[in-house]
Amino acid sequence: MSSSTPKNNDPYKNKKQIAIIGSGAWASVIARIIARNVLILKRFHPIVKMFVYDEIINNKKLSDIINETHENVKYAPGYIFTKNLKAIPDLVECVKFADILVFVVPRQYVENTCKTIVGNVKPNAVAVSLTKGFEVRPGGSLWLISHIITKLLNIKCHVFMGANLAPEVAAEQKICRSTLGCTHKTWGKWLKEIFETDHLKINVVDDEDTVEACGALKNIVATAVGLMDGLAQKNHYKEATMRLGFIEMIKFVDIFYPGGKLSTFFESCGIEDLIVTSYGGRNSKCAKEMVVTGKKLAQIEEEMLKGQKLQGPDTASQVCTMLRAHKMTHKFPFFTKVHAVCNGDEPPDSLKEYVEKNMSKKTYVPVNLII
Amino acid sequence: MSSSTPKNNDPYKNKKQIAIIGSGAWASVIARIIARNVLILKRFHPIVKMFVYDEIINNKKLSDIINETHENVKYAPGYIFTKNLKAIPDLVECVKFADILVFVVPRQYVENTCKTIVGNVKPNAVAVSLTKGFEVRPGGSLWLISHIITKLLNIKCHVFMGANLAPEVAAEQKICRSTLGCTHKTWGKWLKEIFETDHLKINVVDDEDTVEACGALKNIVATAVGLMDGLAQKNHYKEATMRLGFIEMIKFVDIFYPGGKLSTFFESCGIEDLIVTSYGGRNSKCAKEMVVTGKKLAQIEEEMLKGQKLQGPDTASQVCTMLRAHKMTHKFPFFTKVHAVCNGDEPPDSLKEYVEKNMSKKTYVPVNLII
Repeated sequence: MSSSTPKNNDPYKNKKQIAIIGSGAWASVIARIIARNVLILKRFHPIVKMFVYDEIINNKKLSDIINETHENVKYAPGYIFTKNLKAIPDLVECVKFADILVFVVPRQYVENTCKTIVGNVKPNAVAVSLTKGFEVRPGGSLWLISHIITKLLNIKCHVFMGANLAPEVAAEQKICRSTLGCTHKTWGKWLKEIFETDHLKINVVDDEDTVEACGALKNIVATAVGLMDGLAQKNHYKEATMRLGFIEMIKFVDIFYPGGKLSTFFESCGIEDLIVTSYGGRNSKCAKEMVVTGKKLAQIEEEMLKGQKLQGPDTASQVCTMLRAHKMTHKFPFFTKVHAVCNGDEPPDSLKEYVEKNMSKKTYVPVNLII
Repeated sequence: MSSSTPKNNDPYKNKKQIAIIGSGAWASVIARIIARNVLILKRFHPIVKMFVYDEIINNKKLSDIINETHENVKYAPGYIFTKNLKAIPDLVECVKFADILVFVVPRQYVENTCKTIVGNVKPNAVAVSLTKGFEVRPGGSLWLISHIITKLLNIKCHVFMGANLAPEVAAEQKICRSTLGCTHKTWGKWLKEIFETDHLKINVVDDEDTVEACGALKNIVATAVGLMDGLAQKNHYKEATMRLGFIEMIKFVDIFYPGGKLSTFFESCGIEDLIVTSYGGRNSKCAKEMVVTGKKLAQIEEEMLKGQKLQGPDTASQVCTMLRAHKMTHKFPFFTKVHAVCNGDEPPDSLKEYVEKNMSKKTYVPVNLII
């Protein structure tokens, strides 16, 4: 197997190279799948590079450990990579020959990552973002992560979102589902090839922004479900909370991503991911723990997520910053309430009161979406 | 308090009289709510009649027991009616002065009930159906229960559907939700008054057929979720099953009830009822039991439902009879599969195979519904 640097005599020089940016739990699960898949896919270069932000573990660099043991001992212990997965501690080195950039970093690192690699990315490369969330830009506008990537790198960015839970995808004991948002038919086919396995079934839809918005917003709803669960184990109102949140997700896409499709909410990235995440994901688990223990979000993140930011509260915070800037918080009372509770501005009980008071609220009828 | 037969000197002669047709668990829960509500609602006659199909319990008629003890000792033990609820063992007697007929009988009894009372119903009366299901008519067409009532009695029939579980509505310890499908604005307001309580919040929507179809079809999906749960506790694929079922619900309404609204699926009678019923209702519980014990449906119905028919399998059977008659089973593989399993024609594993094979299926995009 040759090095992945293209040379004239390189038999793989026309093969598409893949770089995975990120080495956390989800990134490692996805890297493991992609590396295994390319071994039998002729279109792709057999070496898959994964950028590893180096940390020292037992006096050794994590990237060296991964390349020697083929295991991400810190974030995905127990799951062995095929040997064609190479951990690369240098970000530019990782991406410079890549035709496909798979972003799986927390959204807080996306901008700096792009700024680091800009100018070293192939002009025809495409990106796929698995990163969930939004980012408020100076001026108060809210950007989808894929839009940031496209803007900063000047390449097209597709998206890949649930319904699935990282540990379940990793375990490969049940079949999980994901939705690939991709407007380009050929790329949609190729990207599906690298992600799909017998245990991870992928559906390609062309409504990228809605797919991505669902992936981000559902974490706010799942957080709310966890808060409600913590407040009252028996009278949890989980389904009513899910419905109120789902309605606000639709309203949000209707207002901010006009032209999207209502039917995308019925894809696995929509209603199914919402249910999966609300019942089993870490947003709801951590949110429940916040209420049960009375601890603040930051402490829960420290204790349960090794200091990582919990996505739901972070997404709620970004969304609400934008809503405040545009005097639109009153249009999104659900998201606003979840943010207020996670931020410590209001007690969890106020969310319960809100849900109880609004649970028979009529659904929102979108005006800017098509079916 | 006067008798409910209108006389010239009757102070209640202009008050709207309510008759509840049915005295099972759900009928009793609803009767209890209505009887309590009318005591403080000026528009309605203070006597509420409930038709009780008499059975002998400890040498006494059930209707007599109810009228003496104000408790339906057989189907809703522990819940005391207000004294203005009168059990009436004669169906015609029960309905003949009623302005509002509340149908809460199993769908198998609706036709005979209508045939018994036709000619004895006030011409301006309205019906509200809480009965879930469809009925195949001679010729193979499938009728919503409300359409049967309207056709046979020549009165308007509105509908009242979940999300809720009868035991939870009865217990009044948490707030439950229901959707009232009613195209008539004034009646919508009045009917909401008789059903709503602090613990049962009601939303009125004008898309009656979709509301009713959701109420019926969600039981097929919940049955499937229960079957899947019984097959594999851990790898249950509940959310994927719900999504595939939900897609077929939308397709069904799109094809058979054109002009309905896609947004009705986001009301409490839609996605929320689907989740509530799939996770907690008796359709999923009994279906799971079928798989776990290997018993046939009829035996489960005998043991767990006192011989009542389980709604999900019955609805699937009615739907599939119609689909077969119109050579359309291939368009509804999910409903067809659930029916085949419940009917004993295929093993439960075949449903699991179907779900596994189709879980990444694209959503169905309706063409005849509006947003």
